[in-house]
Amino acid sequence: MEPVEFRRWAEELAQWISTYLEELDGYPVLSRSRPGDLRARLPDEAPEEGEPMDRILSDFYELVLPGITHWNHPSFFAYFAVTGSGPGILGEMLAASLNVNAMLWRTSPAATELEEHVTDWLRRLLGLPEGFRGVIQDTASTSSLVALAAARHRAFPQAREEGLFHGPPGRVYASAEAHSSIEKAVVTLGLGRQGLRKISTDSAFRMDPEALDLAVRDDLSRGLRPVAVVATLGTTSTTSSDPLSPIRKVASEHGLWLHVDAAYAGAAAMVPELRAPFAGWEEADSVVFNPHKWLFTPVDCSVLLMRHPEVVRDAFSLVPEYLKSSPGEEATNLMDYGVALGRRFRALKLWFVLRWFGAAGIRDRIRAHVELARGFAREVDAAPDWERGAPVPFSTVVFRFRPPETDESTCDRLNLAVMERVNRTGEAFLSHTALDGRTWLRLSVGNLRTQKSHVDRAWTLLREAAREERR
Amino acid sequence: MEPVEFRRWAEELAQWISTYLEELDGYPVLSRSRPGDLRARLPDEAPEEGEPMDRILSDFYELVLPGITHWNHPSFFAYFAVTGSGPGILGEMLAASLNVNAMLWRTSPAATELEEHVTDWLRRLLGLPEGFRGVIQDTASTSSLVALAAARHRAFPQAREEGLFHGPPGRVYASAEAHSSIEKAVVTLGLGRQGLRKISTDSAFRMDPEALDLAVRDDLSRGLRPVAVVATLGTTSTTSSDPLSPIRKVASEHGLWLHVDAAYAGAAAMVPELRAPFAGWEEADSVVFNPHKWLFTPVDCSVLLMRHPEVVRDAFSLVPEYLKSSPGEEATNLMDYGVALGRRFRALKLWFVLRWFGAAGIRDRIRAHVELARGFAREVDAAPDWERGAPVPFSTVVFRFRPPETDESTCDRLNLAVMERVNRTGEAFLSHTALDGRTWLRLSVGNLRTQKSHVDRAWTLLREAAREERR
Repeated sequence: MEPVEFRRWAEELAQWISTYLEELDGYPVLSRSRPGDLRARLPDEAPEEGEPMDRILSDFYELVLPGITHWNHPSFFAYFAVTGSGPGILGEMLAASLNVNAMLWRTSPAATELEEHVTDWLRRLLGLPEGFRGVIQDTASTSSLVALAAARHRAFPQAREEGLFHGPPGRVYASAEAHSSIEKAVVTLGLGRQGLRKISTDSAFRMDPEALDLAVRDDLSRGLRPVAVVATLGTTSTTSSDPLSPIRKVASEHGLWLHVDAAYAGAAAMVPELRAPFAGWEEADSVVFNPHKWLFTPVDCSVLLMRHPEVVRDAFSLVPEYLKSSPGEEATNLMDYGVALGRRFRALKLWFVLRWFGAAGIRDRIRAHVELARGFAREVDAAPDWERGAPVPFSTVVFRFRPPETDESTCDRLNLAVMERVNRTGEAFLSHTALDGRTWLRLSVGNLRTQKSHVDRAWTLLREAAREERR
Repeated sequence: MEPVEFRRWAEELAQWISTYLEELDGYPVLSRSRPGDLRARLPDEAPEEGEPMDRILSDFYELVLPGITHWNHPSFFAYFAVTGSGPGILGEMLAASLNVNAMLWRTSPAATELEEHVTDWLRRLLGLPEGFRGVIQDTASTSSLVALAAARHRAFPQAREEGLFHGPPGRVYASAEAHSSIEKAVVTLGLGRQGLRKISTDSAFRMDPEALDLAVRDDLSRGLRPVAVVATLGTTSTTSSDPLSPIRKVASEHGLWLHVDAAYAGAAAMVPELRAPFAGWEEADSVVFNPHKWLFTPVDCSVLLMRHPEVVRDAFSLVPEYLKSSPGEEATNLMDYGVALGRRFRALKLWFVLRWFGAAGIRDRIRAHVELARGFAREVDAAPDWERGAPVPFSTVVFRFRPPETDESTCDRLNLAVMERVNRTGEAFLSHTALDGRTWLRLSVGNLRTQKSHVDRAWTLLREAAREERR
């Protein structure tokens, strides 16, 4: 594509995207597609001859767009709500155009140095001490995999050479509320699902440090090898936070690596009055926080902050001849801090986002989201047939419809039906979770375009749906 | 950022990017930065107040750009040369704007279905049979990790639950020329570096299938458990290809998973007269090919083609309540086929690229790159003081300066010096490798903007640098 033609289409997309962002409210949040809808409309084979861009874009508008669930929609309240903000999109445009690979320092010094620098900005904003060094991974799943690989390397120093075959079984500890990515990482690393021991939680879904201590002692007495404990600040179901100080104490006593998963809630650490749950995380061995969740950065951008980057490097580094740097080049090669050799220039969009909003601007928006969520929680608390399932420390509310004289399993079915009914309207999209085996709904605020009117409308839709389902 | 302001800046970037692509020839390919140059010019902290976009962009132009090694430059001949093509950049603009997460079908049906569909287009273009299903990962490192995790799952069915602690040591086989990502995957999976047994190669750097057979038998006799063999089509050093048919025979006999790493060379399988090395790959258990290498797609986009997607899913799938789909939704959830839960909409750019160029257009460009490389090889062959280190089956030439009466270690130093001298000119960027312990240079063609004049200029620069170094 000639540069002049590229410019024409990029300008058309600039216009289309700006209209899209302007008119997002008019799209159904959750796609109304049924499985196979798109594939049925696509030819079985790639075209033999190249096609003009106007035809490709018209297929994008007509075929792809109806199959999009609009994560950028102000009424997207499912999972954790996110924003692909304007400055973030601009950063991605440039990153795709430069198309650099930040595997080695020399393969684009600015990509490596900006990544080191901007993750250091983030470290300061989060209130973490200087000892932490940052690296950007695609997702928290990968960041936690890398952190736990380092923990495994510390617990089984011979595993890098010999594998795990000769060691006593290793154990990672996390609360029953920890994210499924922790279990996936433990399985990937060869520790097996039994290698993750799930620790019970208290009534507010926080890890019980005494149960952790007992579990570690029990495992030690059985000849197992404790490797790491994962403390979650802002769990996926309820955004509960594990009590860091007592967990740290257990970790220190038994030599466990302490990994903190603050993938979602980390953004709140920038706001003084929301910082309480983070006290003590400066003692962690590693911390993951995802700017692509609650920091307005387009997916993917997960920051792993490492207090022992040398352990991560020792666990992963393998440098073949064709990747050796020149003598005298004493710089960081970021490929040594993760699984992937190839690395996009993700720091650019994060730099754009942090500068565009500024620290004060970020704090204001985080505060506004928390206030919207707590406002919704107050509505739920005041409504007779509704109840809340957990506190609201951040921007996510867990709640359910609980009409009188309804047994638990009826209540489960009712809430799923209410949720599906709301989601089908296309006006809002919520998700659900299970607490103690029962079904609860979740409303998560995290999109920059979300106003009180959107949250209010979701509440109206929920009550209407509940009335319909009770008929 | 208001949509109208977004539009203004996106239009400015459309113009800047188009000028950048037009004027790429004028940039030094390899950045002239020294370690720390960028960081020294950045403030220690993120700004407290948000900054205007013109200031951010002017810092991008003035501070970041000099630290960029221009992978999109027509004289980028290092590693494997790549292209972030116009349609690919447009696809990334849209993907960043929609900002969907393709973890579940319902979280954007079109993202999942387009990924399934466009990887199926690719499968057909590559000449692979229907049994293969595709999934997009970030890089070949991850694709190979996922493939080898599936292989591990088949070899150690209990490992998902119990870990590797009770099994006999597992072994993966790959040639001594296999990419370092294979070793990294084996270490990550808990098999240890000893878990990768490197098989010797013949004089053309192809795995010796008899040596493979002997190694497997030797390991079996020692009570080890063979897991997988990785055959490379297009190795990183010389682009040699392992002989698939005899490797497949060994794999079948001993129940090894056959993973084919065609991350770079896969593109050549689309061209009939280049297809010979791929004969037999339809019998593989998994294949990785990276459209972000030689298929004009911006990084990152690695396609893993799976003949046993159910084994991959069984190895990885963990579905917590908050990610459960609704009853009756019988669709693919792509999070089950990899480590990362969050997944960018990477299929969009690949769809744009395949449609824009068309199959015929892709074949033409691959052929042109191969011809450019072979033309360069002919120049090397004809020059008295230069020699070639390997055949040129694809678009990469391995060669060195070898003046008469120079011993091997002098020759090594000389070639590194020649390479550094050329790279310092900013007019071309080449990399090196080691063959049998000796230093060789590599010139890889893969950028759409590369013309014969660029390759000729590189050859002139190399000869000039050699003359200077010999003085």
